[in-house]
Amino acid sequence: MQIAILGYGTVGGGVGRLVAQQQHQVQQLQVTHIFVRPTHPRTQPEMSDDFEAIINDSHLDVVVETLGGVEPAHQYILAALRHGKHVVTANKAVVARYLQEFTQVAAAHHVHFYYEASTGGGIPWLRNLEQAARVDSLDRLAGILNGTSNYILDQMASQGVEFEVALRSAQQLGYAEADPTADVAGIDVQNKLRISTAVAFNVDPQFALPTWGINGVRQSDIRDLQRLGLTLKLMGTSVRHGDHVAAVVAPTVVVNDSLFAHTPGNFNLVALHGESVGDLQFYGQGAGAAPTATAIVQDVLDIAHGVPHLHRDFAQPAISDDDLLTGDYLVRGAVGACPGVTDSMVGSYYWAADVHPAVMARWVASHPDSLALRLSPAASAQVRPTVAQLAQGRRAFA
Amino acid sequence: MQIAILGYGTVGGGVGRLVAQQQHQVQQLQVTHIFVRPTHPRTQPEMSDDFEAIINDSHLDVVVETLGGVEPAHQYILAALRHGKHVVTANKAVVARYLQEFTQVAAAHHVHFYYEASTGGGIPWLRNLEQAARVDSLDRLAGILNGTSNYILDQMASQGVEFEVALRSAQQLGYAEADPTADVAGIDVQNKLRISTAVAFNVDPQFALPTWGINGVRQSDIRDLQRLGLTLKLMGTSVRHGDHVAAVVAPTVVVNDSLFAHTPGNFNLVALHGESVGDLQFYGQGAGAAPTATAIVQDVLDIAHGVPHLHRDFAQPAISDDDLLTGDYLVRGAVGACPGVTDSMVGSYYWAADVHPAVMARWVASHPDSLALRLSPAASAQVRPTVAQLAQGRRAFA
Repeated sequence: MQIAILGYGTVGGGVGRLVAQQQHQVQQLQVTHIFVRPTHPRTQPEMSDDFEAIINDSHLDVVVETLGGVEPAHQYILAALRHGKHVVTANKAVVARYLQEFTQVAAAHHVHFYYEASTGGGIPWLRNLEQAARVDSLDRLAGILNGTSNYILDQMASQGVEFEVALRSAQQLGYAEADPTADVAGIDVQNKLRISTAVAFNVDPQFALPTWGINGVRQSDIRDLQRLGLTLKLMGTSVRHGDHVAAVVAPTVVVNDSLFAHTPGNFNLVALHGESVGDLQFYGQGAGAAPTATAIVQDVLDIAHGVPHLHRDFAQPAISDDDLLTGDYLVRGAVGACPGVTDSMVGSYYWAADVHPAVMARWVASHPDSLALRLSPAASAQVRPTVAQLAQGRRAFA
Repeated sequence: MQIAILGYGTVGGGVGRLVAQQQHQVQQLQVTHIFVRPTHPRTQPEMSDDFEAIINDSHLDVVVETLGGVEPAHQYILAALRHGKHVVTANKAVVARYLQEFTQVAAAHHVHFYYEASTGGGIPWLRNLEQAARVDSLDRLAGILNGTSNYILDQMASQGVEFEVALRSAQQLGYAEADPTADVAGIDVQNKLRISTAVAFNVDPQFALPTWGINGVRQSDIRDLQRLGLTLKLMGTSVRHGDHVAAVVAPTVVVNDSLFAHTPGNFNLVALHGESVGDLQFYGQGAGAAPTATAIVQDVLDIAHGVPHLHRDFAQPAISDDDLLTGDYLVRGAVGACPGVTDSMVGSYYWAADVHPAVMARWVASHPDSLALRLSPAASAQVRPTVAQLAQGRRAFA
């Protein structure tokens, strides 16, 4: 199998090294082209900036896209598929946007389009999701899908530092970009949740997806939640009931007994629920050169061995229905106009009950100095009795 | 695809129901035979006690074996393979014993022998292990692989009850057999760890495997460990370094921060470590009709779709080397002759340092009123500073 790698950064380089190590295996994989910018130093003989020459190489089997970003990755992937090359990508932004188009073009040209590495890094998440969907009716996904934000929240909880200090530490370790917006504001999780939801429910990833991040979280928030026996994580959640779908990306409060609460550092944890199989959860490195490279090479080996993936056309109807994810929130700041807000306090937060994610997302967007933390169903069940007591107390003294 | 189910208990019945639900799927699966004892009431037209007639049915594609136990399951599986039928089994006892033979006979007759449901129930553990081994060098496995014992330990920790009370509760819920020996004494985990280790390292499952269970654990043990910030689980662990392999099944103390410590009720959690992918962990229902049936149907669908599994001959050398799993233990009872025992106390336990699993297993077997709890590496690191202080204190006052 002859492979071209587009882009030779962290992930692309990791793929090059892993393929080189695999030479002793039965399956012969060979990197014959590495597409780099004209200005990139030519450290390996396979390097070139001539994309046309690469996809016109009739011996080339697979294009591995690790450029990142939407364009020109989108055009390069389409061109490779149209030239009859299989494509494997780690690029969540372009997959979240164009999954349906890539799938159609790949089918039309009788090649495969695989994207395991786009979501969950080294965790074999999408293939397990595909496989579960093969025999089961899936109705719920939830996950810690961004290692950078998880590292920041974990540092805040374990080291007692403020957000900015934890962020700098993440940057020094190479977990966070100089511009960390995509990680901390939930954009990266949003892309991965779109892809996961599309695979699980066979829907177009372009559904409504209210999203906010952890930018406004303070050390005092982490401490307050610890006192309540709760842990804060940035999570994505999506649910389906029939043709109705709802999803949200938000800072999410989970109970200390959950596996989510004990997902440390830059690890990821993703969960699915199926009618027959029940709860399945998958834990591992969601990023990094070597783990992500294993996910890419797994996809390449599936192509080499003719392993079929689940056929998805992402064309099931998906009626956006926020009723499915109505939930409770802890809010602070200028909460006067906050939807669902009550006069009950939980620690130093106001309790906002039964709010639609999209409604809360709009309030968060228009109140940058306030904070809204979503409660998982278990966290909500843990806190609700306290809320009820407080509310009764208030009424008694009113 | 025409399927025969051997045995129609919990798992066999679950397969029958799941296949019936799948009729709307593209892949047409059909149960055409159900092999039951002569005395079994004939509640379905497919039921028969004529095994020869079943495997001589030229339309039959797959035999699903859910009889359990070593014989006659072993002979039935061999006969089915020799008649050119694919075999899918949930039977850990027979797979742990005859994996190599089944694999050879299946290859000779150009059929598949798959056994996902034998280990980890609904968790897609063996296929993820196989797949990780495809691109990575695996060096460590560890898992909570028995839901019954996990339920008992979890009840003891959360409800404050004694072992016998928790066991009765497990029996009432149908988690434990009338004779719970295989579950609580570690035999069930031993079988599953043999299979996992064979798949991960491509070795014959008949390696040395020191094993003891949780029979002697008291409520006071659970409380003592809770005071130390530790949690007790029945776990299997295996490691490889080059051609050297070591494994152990023992009551194992883990740190409260681990996912293992937060695996509740009758759930399972299994972990692998690979050089490239790092830590991967998989959580789900390790038993039960519906989850186990999904694992069986996944194997049947792989056969229907021609999905190749990793080729394993289980013939890699495996030099038994307990040095790889030398570990620390908390012991109580008649510890005078206990290997590695020191005069340092940790809570109400003596500290036994750097002991080979096989050596400790022999001591446990000959001291039924004593208890030896293995410490995970992280638990050992958490306790060791305390032990050092205590030892220094003792010397100071000696």
